[in-house]
Amino acid sequence: MTFTAPAAPLTLDNSDRLQLQPLDMPERLLLGPGPSNADPAVLASMNRQPIGHLDPAYLQLMDEVQTLLRYAWQTKNTLTYPVPGTGSAAMEATLANVVEPGDVVLVAVKGYFGHRLVDMAGRYGGDVRTISKAWGQAFELGELRQALETHRPKVLALVHAETSTGVRQPLEGVGDLCHQYDCLLLVDTVTSLGGVPIFLDQWQVDLAYSCSQKGLSCPPGISPFTISPRGLAKLDERKTPVANWYLDTTMLRKYWGNDRTYHHTAPVNMTYALREALRLLAEEGLEARWHRHQTNAEKLWDGLEDLGLKCHVDREFRLPTLTTVRVPAGIDPKALTRHLLQHHNIEIGGGLGDLAGQVWRIGLMGANSYPKNVDLLLEALQRSLSALG
Amino acid sequence: MTFTAPAAPLTLDNSDRLQLQPLDMPERLLLGPGPSNADPAVLASMNRQPIGHLDPAYLQLMDEVQTLLRYAWQTKNTLTYPVPGTGSAAMEATLANVVEPGDVVLVAVKGYFGHRLVDMAGRYGGDVRTISKAWGQAFELGELRQALETHRPKVLALVHAETSTGVRQPLEGVGDLCHQYDCLLLVDTVTSLGGVPIFLDQWQVDLAYSCSQKGLSCPPGISPFTISPRGLAKLDERKTPVANWYLDTTMLRKYWGNDRTYHHTAPVNMTYALREALRLLAEEGLEARWHRHQTNAEKLWDGLEDLGLKCHVDREFRLPTLTTVRVPAGIDPKALTRHLLQHHNIEIGGGLGDLAGQVWRIGLMGANSYPKNVDLLLEALQRSLSALG
Repeated sequence: MTFTAPAAPLTLDNSDRLQLQPLDMPERLLLGPGPSNADPAVLASMNRQPIGHLDPAYLQLMDEVQTLLRYAWQTKNTLTYPVPGTGSAAMEATLANVVEPGDVVLVAVKGYFGHRLVDMAGRYGGDVRTISKAWGQAFELGELRQALETHRPKVLALVHAETSTGVRQPLEGVGDLCHQYDCLLLVDTVTSLGGVPIFLDQWQVDLAYSCSQKGLSCPPGISPFTISPRGLAKLDERKTPVANWYLDTTMLRKYWGNDRTYHHTAPVNMTYALREALRLLAEEGLEARWHRHQTNAEKLWDGLEDLGLKCHVDREFRLPTLTTVRVPAGIDPKALTRHLLQHHNIEIGGGLGDLAGQVWRIGLMGANSYPKNVDLLLEALQRSLSALG
Repeated sequence: MTFTAPAAPLTLDNSDRLQLQPLDMPERLLLGPGPSNADPAVLASMNRQPIGHLDPAYLQLMDEVQTLLRYAWQTKNTLTYPVPGTGSAAMEATLANVVEPGDVVLVAVKGYFGHRLVDMAGRYGGDVRTISKAWGQAFELGELRQALETHRPKVLALVHAETSTGVRQPLEGVGDLCHQYDCLLLVDTVTSLGGVPIFLDQWQVDLAYSCSQKGLSCPPGISPFTISPRGLAKLDERKTPVANWYLDTTMLRKYWGNDRTYHHTAPVNMTYALREALRLLAEEGLEARWHRHQTNAEKLWDGLEDLGLKCHVDREFRLPTLTTVRVPAGIDPKALTRHLLQHHNIEIGGGLGDLAGQVWRIGLMGANSYPKNVDLLLEALQRSLSALG
């Protein structure tokens, strides 16, 4: 035999063989930028045996998820499906599929996730151009028009709900501009899907992505993705293969389409969870859901004001899902988040990037957007500020 | 205001607002190529609120997962962590990180997943060379040596446990060869981790990946990845950025290392599940686990022989986790898998690629590798063959 035993026999090393107790994790009220708490019905749905990813029962589940995602996003795009990864994977999926080396990609950067789009687009060979806005502001239509005129991009990418700043970017009219300049419109809806009004088709969005763990109240690990017929036309015209196997829509469309051709082993139990999350969204209805988020956010904003705290973003452009609050003078922002976690079991987020140390980020998303959570947080904030002030 | 209401007001479309009942899925005995059934303790661990991916309790969980993965793989690699996606994402992570445009990558192809490695390596600009073997055979050391001599690759990629053929590729001596030819050794352990003896460090493997839903008895959606110090040296010498943001180890090492820098939102509940699956593996111990898989596989092989069925692979190279059985003359292979599913609630797999229509694939992995499942399957097979014969 060519394969003989090696000189030294193989020996088992048990030094990393930890003997652990069953999992025990603290249960927090997650009011940061995400993950947010999941709906208990969603969590329960994962406590169920997986099924084969080509089982007839699973294929039906896939259809339900696709239909409900179309409802959630208000799109008729056939290729609307969840990417088997967290939100950043779905973000990368949009760029990986439509950007070819040399394509001009214009990114409108007004926060951390705009920079991430720039980083990703560059990795796919995009000729990336940017326009920037201070963290806390939204772009005006005229600014976008001027940038399109200057750069003539193949893709305009921008963030609808910037998780790092709490800004809602208005999208009315942007799709018309993109048609006028013959470019695709790519939109990040990570912190808006399921919590903030979105009308993808009426806004003429060509590519969008989101996550599961915010407005949809599902754990993280599976992420909505959609591409319009215009986006597919760009994909079909590619001269080079998609430079990412896992996220390649030319193959995934055969699994999510009628062929049902095996591509990857689906994250079955995460798909159960997403199906339940979307079922609950459809049961509540988008209008009721959006109204609930707006009402509870306004209650939060008023309460913060009563505590003498100031929101970072003008009310007109504030996201109902994610609020940035200015850190008042004399308070160590990290000491406060630590105090909230240790003494009140509540997680909120700190500032990222340009806003590091300047703001806290408070999320009221999905199953967490209820008045009682606003009250809990405001009381805990007041106590923590007093303790540290 | 620049953003005025559009001419036509936005209207909600409720045509995709499905009203569904809570999730109800059939519970199958999954004896195909995967997913396999999960351990009930693993499933229960997911029915728990997510926690923040930078929460101190979560950081401790990450450490536990890393240590237990090192035990499972028998490696001391610092960078051993789960990729937030299914097995193909971890496969892509190994190639994306070490392959730069123009690098010669030698893939030893003896089944479907070898071809997938070829496809992926090409997308990262690799100058891909292949050697091939009939589906059902393993490479001999002399064949690998000759190919290394001919192609002088930067990376040799091969599949330890080929899920499409049921072949176990012996790895003794391959690492020495790779050192001699100064190339990295990349190994697919998707269908071996947790079921088949693996000694990554003693075999001098530089890059490996696996999945959660086979030998580890966890649902799919999170996938082990590891890179050796030699692999990291190649990564550190890159002249181009890793052409994949989501899987970029230069960033992920800051999250999984001491810095704990935010990269992506972790798939928190899948990490709970993986931690429980690895805890159960450590509790049982690798030797006992491997022995259990081997014993039950041999029981299956003997039983198949008693039914007059023939295994596709020579006994010496058979995987204990995945057995390929030849379809006897006169039987429609798809009719049989359908019959097993519909009448016995058991899933087995069909042949892929070169073996399509010629074999069935039977998995006995993790929590499913027990004598009672072998008996259930053999009895159901006998009845189904009689019904269709």
